[in-house]
Amino acid sequence: MMRVPISKDTRLCISLSGRPSSIGTRFHNYLYDLLGLDYIYKAFTTTDIAAAIAGVRALGIRGCSVSMPFKQDVLALVDEVEPSARAIGAVNTIVNDLTVPGGRLAASNTDYLAVQRLIDEHRLEPTQSVLVYGSGGMANAVATAFRDHGFERGTVVARNAETGRALADRIGYDYAAEAHRADVVVNVTPVGMAGAAEADQVPFSDAVIAGAHTVFDVVAIPSETPLIRAARAAEVRVITGAEVIALQAAEQFERYTGVRPTVDQVMAASAVSRA
Amino acid sequence: MMRVPISKDTRLCISLSGRPSSIGTRFHNYLYDLLGLDYIYKAFTTTDIAAAIAGVRALGIRGCSVSMPFKQDVLALVDEVEPSARAIGAVNTIVNDLTVPGGRLAASNTDYLAVQRLIDEHRLEPTQSVLVYGSGGMANAVATAFRDHGFERGTVVARNAETGRALADRIGYDYAAEAHRADVVVNVTPVGMAGAAEADQVPFSDAVIAGAHTVFDVVAIPSETPLIRAARAAEVRVITGAEVIALQAAEQFERYTGVRPTVDQVMAASAVSRA
Repeated sequence: MMRVPISKDTRLCISLSGRPSSIGTRFHNYLYDLLGLDYIYKAFTTTDIAAAIAGVRALGIRGCSVSMPFKQDVLALVDEVEPSARAIGAVNTIVNDLTVPGGRLAASNTDYLAVQRLIDEHRLEPTQSVLVYGSGGMANAVATAFRDHGFERGTVVARNAETGRALADRIGYDYAAEAHRADVVVNVTPVGMAGAAEADQVPFSDAVIAGAHTVFDVVAIPSETPLIRAARAAEVRVITGAEVIALQAAEQFERYTGVRPTVDQVMAASAVSRA
Repeated sequence: MMRVPISKDTRLCISLSGRPSSIGTRFHNYLYDLLGLDYIYKAFTTTDIAAAIAGVRALGIRGCSVSMPFKQDVLALVDEVEPSARAIGAVNTIVNDLTVPGGRLAASNTDYLAVQRLIDEHRLEPTQSVLVYGSGGMANAVATAFRDHGFERGTVVARNAETGRALADRIGYDYAAEAHRADVVVNVTPVGMAGAAEADQVPFSDAVIAGAHTVFDVVAIPSETPLIRAARAAEVRVITGAEVIALQAAEQFERYTGVRPTVDQVMAASAVSRA
């Protein structure tokens, strides 16, 4: 499992985020080596997102994963946006079609696609009620994924009433200022995230957790958040942010390389990348 | 000698040229692995040099080697140009100072520096006469290196009288339309280069070759050009383009990483990269 030596023909994929981690870098490079693909992947940050995307195009960089705070800004910098990503108003994946002279950048939202897959994998039912806590770019992706998957009974909860109502109105969900009981409750805020002000807090009450069929926390670092631990303790089913990250990364991986890693390969890459 | 796993902190260096080869990529990556440096290097081409250099800056790419046809264009795209490179009017090396917010691009010409080192290594004497055949960017670097090293008796020979005279005038050398005998004769044209129209030709007459103390061919692919072979056959000393490439790459390597490879390491990397 040694990598193919880097040559002029090696494809480069990158990520752009405000605070890069090495998780994506390890994930993609692990799978490149495992699958014998002549690619390299590296995380970057930038103070000039327009110039960075222009650089992706000018250098023929094959793929670019996009994280906070650039998910909205890049919409205006690419050639094509998938309808779901356009509706969400945020993209996290840019694929550069290198067969077009000067390249062609197509943007999509694999967070949205990953949440749709997780709904299937965990056999959630569209008849279940869903409550999404948060109203940022990722909350837009999560709520839209549920709605597009047929979940008609939904509520958006957000401390920011303006963005919360806007999201709820766009997808036909209710808006509420406070969380209430629902079959599927999803945290898409930084509550419970390492390094956040509310790192040690639980975003939902014990009653909301105990009353849920499934607790879904999008926070991935750590994947065992206070919320996930509380849900496990209450013997409620969980979906973790680690699952979202792994699935969306697998989706990106396929779009960049044309190769779909198996579930086992994704799990191994995910374990290595988070070690 | 396995590479350090790529992480978010791995430094990326690249090259930009119209027709990338894998030589530089192999050279730098070989030395990174040998010396345990957390760097990767990859060759790129571009159809938009301004956007590519903007990308180097925006992505915090540490170093960028520049080849034909971009050596002049990048002068206007960087923050600082070394005086020798400014005089030559061409750069082949950009170092990005990542300690400056947004980066700071300093350009230099390591071809010039490599030729100065070769003059020393091969113990050429400033009292010798020198004839430089060519008037492009590399010919400017070579002729300027000789002049700055104290060689006062020089002639520029070029089929393009305008650029040939301009170079000769700038450095105080004579201009001639045809090559004549000199102690050191240098080919800085594509004559003898693989893929060029004149790939199988010798740029100097037998008399010029036999009359020289040293024949210096800047053509590097192949390094055993028809000129070098003719000079060896005539038992005249030679300096090859492979030596120029290896030395200028070592100079770039030191500027990008802060580590100067030994001569043995450069020779090993050069052999591997040309294999």
